[in-house]
Amino acid sequence: MADALFGRVAIVGVGLIGSSIARAARRAGLVGTIAASDADAAVRARVRELGFVDEVTETSAEAAEGADLVIVCTPIGACGAVAAEVGPRLKPGAILSDVGSVKGAVISVMAPHVPPHAHFVPAHPIAGTENSGPDAGFAELFDGRWAIVVETPGSDPQAVAKVRAFWEGLGAKTDTMTAEHHDLVFAIVSHVPHLIAYNIVGTAADLEDVTQSEVIKYSASGFRDFTRIAASDPTMWRDVFLNNRDAVLQMLGRFVEDLTALQRAIRWGEGDKLFDLFTRTRAIRRDIIEQGQDTAAPDFGRRSAPPAGE
Amino acid sequence: MADALFGRVAIVGVGLIGSSIARAARRAGLVGTIAASDADAAVRARVRELGFVDEVTETSAEAAEGADLVIVCTPIGACGAVAAEVGPRLKPGAILSDVGSVKGAVISVMAPHVPPHAHFVPAHPIAGTENSGPDAGFAELFDGRWAIVVETPGSDPQAVAKVRAFWEGLGAKTDTMTAEHHDLVFAIVSHVPHLIAYNIVGTAADLEDVTQSEVIKYSASGFRDFTRIAASDPTMWRDVFLNNRDAVLQMLGRFVEDLTALQRAIRWGEGDKLFDLFTRTRAIRRDIIEQGQDTAAPDFGRRSAPPAGE
Ligand SMILES: NC(=O)c1ccc[n+]([C@@H]2O[C@H](COP(=O)([O-])OP(=O)(O)OC[C@H]3O[C@@H](n4cnc5c(N)ncnc54)[C@H](OP(=O)(O)O)[C@@H]3O)[C@@H](O)[C@H]2O)c1
Ligand SMILES: NC(=O)c1ccc[n+]([C@@H]2O[C@H](COP(=O)([O-])OP(=O)(O)OC[C@H]3O[C@@H](n4cnc5c(N)ncnc54)[C@H](OP(=O)(O)O)[C@@H]3O)[C@@H](O)[C@H]2O)c1
Repeated sequence: MADALFGRVAIVGVGLIGSSIARAARRAGLVGTIAASDADAAVRARVRELGFVDEVTETSAEAAEGADLVIVCTPIGACGAVAAEVGPRLKPGAILSDVGSVKGAVISVMAPHVPPHAHFVPAHPIAGTENSGPDAGFAELFDGRWAIVVETPGSDPQAVAKVRAFWEGLGAKTDTMTAEHHDLVFAIVSHVPHLIAYNIVGTAADLEDVTQSEVIKYSASGFRDFTRIAASDPTMWRDVFLNNRDAVLQMLGRFVEDLTALQRAIRWGEGDKLFDLFTRTRAIRRDIIEQGQDTAAPDFGRRSAPPAGE
Repeated sequence: MADALFGRVAIVGVGLIGSSIARAARRAGLVGTIAASDADAAVRARVRELGFVDEVTETSAEAAEGADLVIVCTPIGACGAVAAEVGPRLKPGAILSDVGSVKGAVISVMAPHVPPHAHFVPAHPIAGTENSGPDAGFAELFDGRWAIVVETPGSDPQAVAKVRAFWEGLGAKTDTMTAEHHDLVFAIVSHVPHLIAYNIVGTAADLEDVTQSEVIKYSASGFRDFTRIAASDPTMWRDVFLNNRDAVLQMLGRFVEDLTALQRAIRWGEGDKLFDLFTRTRAIRRDIIEQGQDTAAPDFGRRSAPPAGE
């Protein structure tokens, strides 16, 4: 382990993201020892069984003891309490980080617990699936994806550089951004899309004229893609919306404004307006595929999937 | 071909759907001869090259000549004109059908052109991808998917039964429904989902505070799934919204009403309301997977896809 970037890394919260970090760090030989802790005893037991960390501790304080890097991978709502618990254990020069999908609110509850002799470098990997828990994680999750590292006022450039190197070692490309800008960008590329997916699935479930069984039977016509997003973890997403309220409401306002214009175009039969928008949106898809952020296979490659059952 | 359900089948409009019907009919040995026609000379030439039909004609009238079944697979906006052209050529006992994603409006423009000695049996297969054209089609498109066959007032039960048998031969499961109910069901499971996908992609492209390149870079966080849907054919979808106006506006009204309630819950920090909805929507996803209408692989199975490029 001559090349290990960090001697001891502590992961607090070993779900999809925490367990993927551990697996990817092992794959790359990035760290000496990985300690992990989780509030849920069943998760701790399962992590012991899966064996992708060196040590599973009862408390986050124990995991953080002597660690060079502590990464908080709990839902956002728990980040403040975890920081309060691990902050006093951070050794001189240690780095505290997180992976929360919202940055401003998380920083405001974590930063006060970081002692002057340690560093705080928040981060957010842009990778995930709709599944949760330690079984859902895998070493390749971050390969080719972006990880945002946030520079806060007074953050230590060397600590920032080490966190970037860590994420690059996990397979990601890194970028830095302010917390404020991060929260605006992810409100539109992630939070509002999740909100409208949850919303349409809820609307469809509550109709009187169309039954739930019809919605399910005929979902291949568009709806099913929304249901995948709307199957994401309820706790994680509740916390995202509660903690990125202002940016989400701002972006939602824009979405509704544009939707009202489309509604009006449909009402008045303005086919050209519809056609123009529908043409413009294709260009963005093309760029996403060119930049390797999605597969070009039709239907996300479902075509080559094993045939669907009855 | 002793088992052929129809001697001669004519396909008018040989794009994704028309070409998939031809390929699937051949795979199953369902028909004697397949004739095809398309308004686009380049498409006709390509269909000749691909060789999945027996005959390519210049006009739809020629293709329909002597056919036992004529299926109109053009965008909805062309269905009336095609019916006007092929109607007078229909031989006694011939069946005219279509595949349009909207039924009420399409029936109202096609039905008047069907002579008394022929039958009209509208249909709609619930299968497709975001791609268009004869190269995008494939024989397996309808396997395990639903096809809706519409019973109109006075429709001939035997003709309806033959069209159902045809779709079942193509690999689909069939169901019947009134045109009115069809248009309501597909407004919520297909048309409104497409509209909001186009809308959010448009909103994201027009922001001042977030650049288009950021939207593309970080799209893996939710947005990219919407861009796939928003890459669907502009002509097809313009026609869908213009022709299913009332049902789309009705369902859109419900969607916006529910979204307003969610917006309010976020503004007032009502985490329980968010959590309840986010939990309820998971059940629908589970049912869709259990009924074989989607893959349970996380991220639509992208995980096992070849690694994304830089
Ligand atoms: N999922 C994604 O797509 C994604 C992508 C990027 C970033 N993120 C961020 O990553 C974080 C974790 O998400 P995830 O998907 O990995 O969630 P997850 O699979 O649900 O894992 C979170 C784990 O943290 C545990 N936990 C909760 N409170 C804790 C506490 N106080 N102390 C220790 N452990 C605690 C949970 O235990 P319980 O069993 O008791 O809940 C659970 O095992 C979130 O902040 C999210 O914003 C997620
Ligand atoms: N795509 C889906 O997911 C899906 C699913 C279910 C049902 N549908 C329905 O299927 C129909 C066709 O969709 P598609 O995706 O197969 O479209 P497509 O790939 O664009 O093919 C349509 C073909 O029809 C041709 N055409 C246009 N006007 C014509 C006319 N007057 N006479 C003869 N040919 C004409 C087009 O030629 P040009 O090259 O000149 O345009 C094009 O080659 C639509 O009604 C749609 O509602 C689609």
